[in-house]
Amino acid sequence: MSELRWHPFLQEWTITATHRQDRTFFPPDDFCPLCPTRDSNQPTEIPRAHFDIAVFENRFPSLCTPPPAVELEPNDFVMTRPSSGVCEVVVYTPEHHATLAGLSPRKVEALCRVWKDRYADLISRDGIEYVYIFENKGKEIGVTLSHPHGQIYAYPFIPRTIQTRLESERMHFEKTGRQLAHDWLNFEMQDGRRIVAESEHFITLVPYFARYPYELHILPKQPIPTLLQMNDACLDALARAILDAAQRLDALFGFSMPYIMSLFQHPTDFTRFEVEFLPPYRTKHKLKYLAGSEAGCGVFINDTLPENTAPQLRGAKPSP
Amino acid sequence: MSELRWHPFLQEWTITATHRQDRTFFPPDDFCPLCPTRDSNQPTEIPRAHFDIAVFENRFPSLCTPPPAVELEPNDFVMTRPSSGVCEVVVYTPEHHATLAGLSPRKVEALCRVWKDRYADLISRDGIEYVYIFENKGKEIGVTLSHPHGQIYAYPFIPRTIQTRLESERMHFEKTGRQLAHDWLNFEMQDGRRIVAESEHFITLVPYFARYPYELHILPKQPIPTLLQMNDACLDALARAILDAAQRLDALFGFSMPYIMSLFQHPTDFTRFEVEFLPPYRTKHKLKYLAGSEAGCGVFINDTLPENTAPQLRGAKPSP
Repeated sequence: MSELRWHPFLQEWTITATHRQDRTFFPPDDFCPLCPTRDSNQPTEIPRAHFDIAVFENRFPSLCTPPPAVELEPNDFVMTRPSSGVCEVVVYTPEHHATLAGLSPRKVEALCRVWKDRYADLISRDGIEYVYIFENKGKEIGVTLSHPHGQIYAYPFIPRTIQTRLESERMHFEKTGRQLAHDWLNFEMQDGRRIVAESEHFITLVPYFARYPYELHILPKQPIPTLLQMNDACLDALARAILDAAQRLDALFGFSMPYIMSLFQHPTDFTRFEVEFLPPYRTKHKLKYLAGSEAGCGVFINDTLPENTAPQLRGAKPSP
Repeated sequence: MSELRWHPFLQEWTITATHRQDRTFFPPDDFCPLCPTRDSNQPTEIPRAHFDIAVFENRFPSLCTPPPAVELEPNDFVMTRPSSGVCEVVVYTPEHHATLAGLSPRKVEALCRVWKDRYADLISRDGIEYVYIFENKGKEIGVTLSHPHGQIYAYPFIPRTIQTRLESERMHFEKTGRQLAHDWLNFEMQDGRRIVAESEHFITLVPYFARYPYELHILPKQPIPTLLQMNDACLDALARAILDAAQRLDALFGFSMPYIMSLFQHPTDFTRFEVEFLPPYRTKHKLKYLAGSEAGCGVFINDTLPENTAPQLRGAKPSP
């Protein structure tokens, strides 16, 4: 049973996916479904003994093509539609105990190319409105498979938060002729206090308007909307920026930092590609929870100042 | 240091409140700041040996009046404003180990009157745009003081999620002349499968569009926008409905259920008062986490069907 249901008060689609309740939950290392198949009597999701990076459709998908049939409701505020779309799993490496931060630069460069390839394929499919590449890392985020992997959701609609972002960026562009990201990055670079790292192609920073204490955004300096417009030099620089950010987060408190990593991209003139890391810790020992103000009203409370957390991340660089 | 910063992409205010980083964190029972003051050498937040229900301003407020001064930024996308407003704490009882679900009906009836009184006072103050009464319960939600209490935030702006709700309700009212809540409740009552409890005045249900598996909404059957329009009979019925919902959530899995409880209300014709319980469990042993799809894109994935969870809550009634 899987379908999309419209929330008429919050103006957003919820995915109902009852088969996911039984998805694999912290399997023992020997039974990891994302490891290579080493014993043909015990096949994993990946039917090979060796691989570099593997991509396949999620066995417990929230969205799939073709979707199960739904009984459509008759009125204009109780709406249902099929949960069409694609959910893919991207396994970064055969090494069960690795993390993104520990991969070689060459491996992350290859991962960026895999993402570009998957983005190009999925965004071109009929009925797909938005392609979201992301990684949930760590049990604090609810991850139930520790093998290093990311995911890709190809939604049949523009998600609610993305719609807000696109609308903001479109309006700013119409008003000024410039990308909102351009004007914001100019402000950040002139101020300088929240910049964490910088290369020829990319800038990494804790934004002025950070909602999470150690939130990191990575943006290209040029107005590049998606991975598709990135050449090899740019993709390699992106790989290094992502690796640098993940390594800084690990170095910050001396443990492997959980996070939600999101790639935001959409093929328009007014939007700019962005990678966002949301780590759930507000101190070394305390988590940031989304409670009443955040979950009920959409008002985040940040107990830190980006002007104070950015220098900590600037200093948190592991020795090479 | 406390101020509001505008997120120009997400169109929402974030509260920066650095003094909150040091707020009281799981004090031992003997040092609970919400207990009555029993020893004058060790005063708590409540300078009395006895009380029924206590309300006072939060010692670590996100919003306060007058707010600290801010340096206003000069452009139209990087905006800052003072964090004016009020944050109150509502201590339900002097009993340190009680919970809302375990209070007497008479006590919850009194609590509803305290809420009504605080709402009337705060919503009438200059500069207050929205008054949000809520309770965060349980360490799973990040609560650091276990003594039973709720909170009230009086915001100097309409929070982003509330703005969406108000807009949906306003548009439906303009189009149909009826409240969105009216049409939705009619649909729910005709269908019947998701109704959990019902009295002369209130209805309790898992909505058709539930984002959380055991999400409960309590609405008045009449088009009542806020506590201020409720007479004594209605307030008493509300108290019983809230107590019933909290007790069902405790009975569901046999442990004291954590939750975010929100009172949504706004003084307009087109909105209806609502109490919402968001419990974070998706099974007895598994939490529902907000990960990539939810936190990054605003798309919730519900692993259950409201048609299946509502009957569980209907059956989860403790013996009186």
